Amino acid sequence: KESDGGSSSGSESSKDSSRCSTPVLDADRHERLREKMRRRQDAGDKWFSLEFFPPRTANAAVNLISRFDRMGAGGPLFIDVTWHPAGDPGSDKETSSMIIANTAVNYCGLETILHMTCCNQTKDDITGHLQKAKRLGLKNIMALRGDPIGEEWEEEVDGFNYAVDLVKHIRNEFDDYFDICVAGYPKGHPEAESYEADLRHLKEKVLAGADFIITQLFFRSETFLKFMKDCQAIGITCPIIPGIFPIQGYHSLRQLVKLSKLEVPQEIKDVIEPIKDNDAAIRNYGVELAVSMCRELLDSGMVHGLHFYTLNREVATTDVLKRLGIWKEDPRRPLPWAVSAHPKRRVEDVRPIFWASRPKSYIYRTQEWDDFPNGRWGNSSSPAFGELKDYYLFYLKSKSPREELLKMWGEELTGEESVFEVFTCYITGEPNKNGHKVTCMPWNDDPLATETNLLKEQLEKVNRRGILTINSQPNINGKPSTDPIVGWGPSGGYVFQKAYLEFFTSSEIVMALLKVLKKYELRVNYHIVNVKGQNITNAPDLQPNAVTWGIFPGREIIQPTVVDPVSFLSWKDEAFALWIEQWAKLYEEESPSRMIIQYIHDNYYLVNLVDNDFPLENCLWQVVDDTFELLNSPTQE
Amino acid sequence: KESDGGSSSGSESSKDSSRCSTPVLDADRHERLREKMRRRQDAGDKWFSLEFFPPRTANAAVNLISRFDRMGAGGPLFIDVTWHPAGDPGSDKETSSMIIANTAVNYCGLETILHMTCCNQTKDDITGHLQKAKRLGLKNIMALRGDPIGEEWEEEVDGFNYAVDLVKHIRNEFDDYFDICVAGYPKGHPEAESYEADLRHLKEKVLAGADFIITQLFFRSETFLKFMKDCQAIGITCPIIPGIFPIQGYHSLRQLVKLSKLEVPQEIKDVIEPIKDNDAAIRNYGVELAVSMCRELLDSGMVHGLHFYTLNREVATTDVLKRLGIWKEDPRRPLPWAVSAHPKRRVEDVRPIFWASRPKSYIYRTQEWDDFPNGRWGNSSSPAFGELKDYYLFYLKSKSPREELLKMWGEELTGEESVFEVFTCYITGEPNKNGHKVTCMPWNDDPLATETNLLKEQLEKVNRRGILTINSQPNINGKPSTDPIVGWGPSGGYVFQKAYLEFFTSSEIVMALLKVLKKYELRVNYHIVNVKGQNITNAPDLQPNAVTWGIFPGREIIQPTVVDPVSFLSWKDEAFALWIEQWAKLYEEESPSRMIIQYIHDNYYLVNLVDNDFPLENCLWQVVDDTFELLNSPTQE
Repeated sequence: KESDGGSSSGSESSKDSSRCSTPVLDADRHERLREKMRRRQDAGDKWFSLEFFPPRTANAAVNLISRFDRMGAGGPLFIDVTWHPAGDPGSDKETSSMIIANTAVNYCGLETILHMTCCNQTKDDITGHLQKAKRLGLKNIMALRGDPIGEEWEEEVDGFNYAVDLVKHIRNEFDDYFDICVAGYPKGHPEAESYEADLRHLKEKVLAGADFIITQLFFRSETFLKFMKDCQAIGITCPIIPGIFPIQGYHSLRQLVKLSKLEVPQEIKDVIEPIKDNDAAIRNYGVELAVSMCRELLDSGMVHGLHFYTLNREVATTDVLKRLGIWKEDPRRPLPWAVSAHPKRRVEDVRPIFWASRPKSYIYRTQEWDDFPNGRWGNSSSPAFGELKDYYLFYLKSKSPREELLKMWGEELTGEESVFEVFTCYITGEPNKNGHKVTCMPWNDDPLATETNLLKEQLEKVNRRGILTINSQPNINGKPSTDPIVGWGPSGGYVFQKAYLEFFTSSEIVMALLKVLKKYELRVNYHIVNVKGQNITNAPDLQPNAVTWGIFPGREIIQPTVVDPVSFLSWKDEAFALWIEQWAKLYEEESPSRMIIQYIHDNYYLVNLVDNDFPLENCLWQVVDDTFELLNSPTQE
Repeated sequence: KESDGGSSSGSESSKDSSRCSTPVLDADRHERLREKMRRRQDAGDKWFSLEFFPPRTANAAVNLISRFDRMGAGGPLFIDVTWHPAGDPGSDKETSSMIIANTAVNYCGLETILHMTCCNQTKDDITGHLQKAKRLGLKNIMALRGDPIGEEWEEEVDGFNYAVDLVKHIRNEFDDYFDICVAGYPKGHPEAESYEADLRHLKEKVLAGADFIITQLFFRSETFLKFMKDCQAIGITCPIIPGIFPIQGYHSLRQLVKLSKLEVPQEIKDVIEPIKDNDAAIRNYGVELAVSMCRELLDSGMVHGLHFYTLNREVATTDVLKRLGIWKEDPRRPLPWAVSAHPKRRVEDVRPIFWASRPKSYIYRTQEWDDFPNGRWGNSSSPAFGELKDYYLFYLKSKSPREELLKMWGEELTGEESVFEVFTCYITGEPNKNGHKVTCMPWNDDPLATETNLLKEQLEKVNRRGILTINSQPNINGKPSTDPIVGWGPSGGYVFQKAYLEFFTSSEIVMALLKVLKKYELRVNYHIVNVKGQNITNAPDLQPNAVTWGIFPGREIIQPTVVDPVSFLSWKDEAFALWIEQWAKLYEEESPSRMIIQYIHDNYYLVNLVDNDFPLENCLWQVVDDTFELLNSPTQE
């Protein structure tokens, strides 16, 4: 750590360099895939990656995205999405490879490789796909030849005939922008003249600019280890990642083997044939087989990462990874909210608190921004949020179908109180009067966060009385950054929060609340707004209020969530609309249930409160108690 | 506070608006003078301002600047610097009006008006002066005609004949950039045809673009109040500020009266003549007179601010202001360091801690920057500090003459220990062995800060042993922002600090320290550098470490001081050079004393330490104790 510092005075180079760059909380966000791979290898960390194919239907896409979220929690180095020319893979359809990869990167925050094939496509088509991928924030391409159309394959003059042509094209047209992955065939490509010829083709792909290699599946670790040595022998030095295929069923194995023209070793056939109708048995066997093969690979010392062909399923791959001990469900968060992996958003480290439970909506509404707040939100006199017109965008769609929602939120509402009850059941986790648990709300697709649980008792009390809470956090006065509930960021730091409470409530309660808030003028900041945009606030000069921040060793302060008065007006449009789009529309038009929700939408206020005195006991509950006391006092003054 | 918020979504105006704007801790820094004046008037606050003339010698300039610092503490709304065409007022000389005003704005942080006269000057000369003033960060001009050269004054065709010509010229050439002040004559200008004609001239000046009026001195409050009513009667609505002249001596009064062609009322003459040789008696009378006149003015309800002709003296004006109760020595600081009033630096709210005791040097070395860190320092890979070549720039010069310094720092040094003693005496405040108190050091022109006093006992102990401290702060875990010692920023907030210690020490101690620091690797960040630039640090990625920050109601977090690894290398050049420039050069070349300082300069290291665990007890003293223990242990590992 000794370096010659020299003198930096007198230089004139960077007077105008941006001083607002991110304090690099998390190196991962700033590295490209090949750098991450190298850093993991240098550190001796083992890693894994996951391959998915694009779904067939919109519903399957919704499910795949929540699978991304769940499997992303295990810490894959990357995922990849395959490319099927017949399925319109570059289109804007919610099931296209392009859009699925886009969703993985931007909305799930996963490092993602998009496959791309080149045969039977024009240069312009391919350039168009690559430009679109770049625009969407995709940074990695798996360059493949693809299967020729028709029986026999003929070379096209000036066309893309081999994967190497695509690699060259990417490097020519996009310089070093993309990390490029290519396929390796441990047994040689079935169409290659020979194993040796295929190795030479592979080397050409690397020389043309590929950064690493993922192999086709294989059934024995020796196959891969021999292949790797042969690669090294002819001078291929980039990372080579073995493709692992945990056998998950008799038919999927047969189909894959047919496609890849591989032969299943006799010892495997001998086990499988007798149990071919017992899915569970085959899967157990497949997991065992994969675990022992992966162990051999890792123990060889030549393998640092494992690539899994998941077939879009969760259980087998997760089992293998957990048994290998490389599934790392790290409860530690780099920031209090889920980061996006779009390169434009690399420096983003501040967001308004309002979207805490709707991070995908926040990403969607800010996708057109050219730069993202970092360091602090700043005096954003007019952040331009995109409108959330389509509440049925597949990545924003509720995971629960209409019937489920009706069971949770009431087949029939009888008044505002029945709405209060839904909110209360969501908070308490108790079943509603029809025996159904309320596990999601229009503003929150998931059960109550662990942190919110700290406030459960008080939240229950106020929701029963018509303070319909949709977001809250307790005050925190310096807990370790490793705290399992409220911690985030690197270890050795301290995290802080100001108490926050956000809720819908009637104008009657708002009138009393405003009287009470006078007593708390210096301590509590408030914003109170109705659907028409009538806005009451005591925020000074419309400045944002930092409500979450962290102090870390050797770093500047990170303040990742703020209450921003201006953004709140964009959020309120969304928050009010969710009453109608997600809840009211479950019921027939003109039905009493629908009219109740419509009434609330039209007449309630959305309120947020911040208690600035974070070292003291949270006073927001006292504010609410005082409000109800005022309402109940005979002389209401 | 109710406003129609409307909807801000969908707008596209500000996607690219800078998000790093300052969180507006202090409205004062963002307002122009006329806005400050209006805000004070609206709030019913009474204020004052101070007039100075440029000094004759460089030494007088040094004294005037420290007078600015002292009188600035009383809270003047602005100061102004007069303009004397004979004295080369626009030059770069340290005694010129331009440079004195520049120093007041930039180095003392005072809102400043530069006088400027126009008669007998070319348009180009005047434009040149104005351009220079703008470039230096001056924002206010007092537009005057000036005294004609020679006995009789004649109008020049196309020349600047009246102040109104200068006002018009400023507005033509510089639009609304400058706030413009003009002079009013409560008795009418001596050369005007009549009092009424002079009022009309004044109105012309206001119509031409003047923002406010400061009057010539007068001796009776009725004079001013009548003038003010007359002004209002002819439609002058801008602020009119009475010029107050506390009589400070017989001769200065006579001289001023002669220049301004005013007549001293008989009742004043009657008092003064008999005591004309008793300066103290005249000053006491002058103070009494000024206080009672100012009271009458303020009580009239028509006067909100008072302008004082100080004659560059402190006592009389300060006395008057204190007796009026408008001298407001506010111990509250907007930021932990003294801000500059240059418009470019309006948003500045972060600085490296190294210059804490040398803020004028920091301003000097960063004067060429186009923008200033705000919100946070950022990843400043190469901040371009100007070199500090001339240690004798008048605004950086020690207030103490060479003989004083020799008494404090030793006529003759006998070894490194005699240097340790100087440091120790500075810390303790005890006289040195020759009976002289050490009230300044090369790195610190003032006695120990109150805050540093909190660490006095430990500092004394370590300085005695050769840890020569030049900067330090205790850790603070959330004290009220109004705390009289460590508080800063608006009330209702909490301030925090990480413990900091910076010192010179021998390489022997550094070697032991480095061994000890291994035990504190995760807790303590260090930078250790010698004059050659050998640099040892454990700072991650050369990121800055925030060591002072504040949390305020309804605002983002302010982090005004950082330990920046890159800036430290610029600071070390300055810190090492101060040994030679300020201390060694007091002695003859080749003298033993000089060689001792030179040895320290060549061989010692400059060390800074940050204890990141601000909520725990400061561990830096333990680090130092461990170091000495290691040095004293027989088996030194």
